[in-house]
Amino acid sequence: MKLISYRRHGSQGFGAVVRGSVIDLAARFPEFADLASLLADEVSLARARRIVAVDAVDFPLETVDLAPVIPRPNKVICVGINYVAHAEEAGRTVGAHPVIFHRYAETLVADGEPLVRPTVSDNFDFEAELAVVIGKGGSHIAPEDAMKHVAGYTCFNDASVRDWQFHTHQYGMGKNFRGTGALGPWLVTSDEIPDYRELTIEGLLNGETMQTGKLSELAFDVPALIAYVSQALDWQPGDILATGTPSGIGFKRKPPIFLTPGDTFEVVIPGVGSLSNTVVDEV
Amino acid sequence: MKLISYRRHGSQGFGAVVRGSVIDLAARFPEFADLASLLADEVSLARARRIVAVDAVDFPLETVDLAPVIPRPNKVICVGINYVAHAEEAGRTVGAHPVIFHRYAETLVADGEPLVRPTVSDNFDFEAELAVVIGKGGSHIAPEDAMKHVAGYTCFNDASVRDWQFHTHQYGMGKNFRGTGALGPWLVTSDEIPDYRELTIEGLLNGETMQTGKLSELAFDVPALIAYVSQALDWQPGDILATGTPSGIGFKRKPPIFLTPGDTFEVVIPGVGSLSNTVVDEV
Repeated sequence: MKLISYRRHGSQGFGAVVRGSVIDLAARFPEFADLASLLADEVSLARARRIVAVDAVDFPLETVDLAPVIPRPNKVICVGINYVAHAEEAGRTVGAHPVIFHRYAETLVADGEPLVRPTVSDNFDFEAELAVVIGKGGSHIAPEDAMKHVAGYTCFNDASVRDWQFHTHQYGMGKNFRGTGALGPWLVTSDEIPDYRELTIEGLLNGETMQTGKLSELAFDVPALIAYVSQALDWQPGDILATGTPSGIGFKRKPPIFLTPGDTFEVVIPGVGSLSNTVVDEV
Repeated sequence: MKLISYRRHGSQGFGAVVRGSVIDLAARFPEFADLASLLADEVSLARARRIVAVDAVDFPLETVDLAPVIPRPNKVICVGINYVAHAEEAGRTVGAHPVIFHRYAETLVADGEPLVRPTVSDNFDFEAELAVVIGKGGSHIAPEDAMKHVAGYTCFNDASVRDWQFHTHQYGMGKNFRGTGALGPWLVTSDEIPDYRELTIEGLLNGETMQTGKLSELAFDVPALIAYVSQALDWQPGDILATGTPSGIGFKRKPPIFLTPGDTFEVVIPGVGSLSNTVVDEV
């Protein structure tokens, strides 16, 4: 299933995308306040799968305003320097532990929404990533059990304000500007992705390939990342794990390439989806 | 006013503490879902102040279970290396920009709740801090306007898992273990603190002073911090700004001192309050 969160006629909803139309799952599962709650319940998710296979669609996809898959995840946990080639371009080596930082949920935007270049910087850069959406929560998860906690996958652009990222030794602010984290368009449930390591990822600026990677190249794979974080924090339904970006970011190019208003950046993961956002200046 | 969030008889509430008792403000302001919403409304806050001055109390403080002042702030923004003497003990210098990192709201505990030493580490350390609670939200705030956005002050213990903090160059996980961020007991509204720079702070382990500082010593003061962050993110009512810890942390002592089960750590800020938590092992 391709699952989305959205606003329609002023109300929040969630549903499944079928051939360009939506099956309204919020109406069929009134016991769940949001998509994250549905993802946490395997029995209801199986029922949703049967409904989506047989029911008629409810309305066209273009009649909804997409939300960032999970509108307000409890946590967006990001991983840095997780492709060896990107570590090299960043002048770093992959160490014994994953580099973890975070993004506030309020900085997320949906597919098709603008990416906002801040007033205080023109060092606005792209980062194509695969994002994992957590279904079942948990703590102290063993790597061999970790994939059971994955509800699905979506595309992420961890757009970064590079000069602010390096204001100090902590990435802090540079990864947390308003309107800079694009997530979507939908999550593809994990039953449709037998092995995420076979996925490939591409980042395109105005149609030109800037970044390519294979998910088999992750220095810390998805089970290792889920297990590591779960030692400290409880994973909760709808939490997002952004797995890191492959090489080719704008900042490390000679000369550097930065996003400017009117640019469109796409994150394409065949089998998952295509996330497209156009850059505007903050007003 | 001293304002608290709490649970009582299974329901969430908020109120004012008056001589060891509570005036129930949730009942008097049903239009506000939580304390953060009340803090955002200056007119209602002034009305609350008049009520608290004249009304009889509703119930004893010991009949409520305190929540961490703001139970689920949108953001907990932390500042590192913000006292010169602490920067020296950490082997760092104060730079041109504040060191910003974050804590997930789900890691917060209230005054009196246990601080949880994780199973994966015995490097569990204390950090006494003044926390600022934001009232009125805003973006692109000038330093000279910043104090208008402060609702009040409370005590914070940014308890840190040191080995995990230094797993990589990003503090990430070490500052985000479950049950490690103590916040409380209440917020003292800013009208009662004419100048926060006159406050002093002390951190005590089992009654023995470990850390002392003056808020006048901050390398980046509260207006500068509010202004800096507001360039990137919108401050929202109830957001927490933790202003950094003075020197004396356990990790840098010779020999190091770490928190062990049964220890009690107190953060004392005369004029604001005293936050006390006892350490337990994660189970």
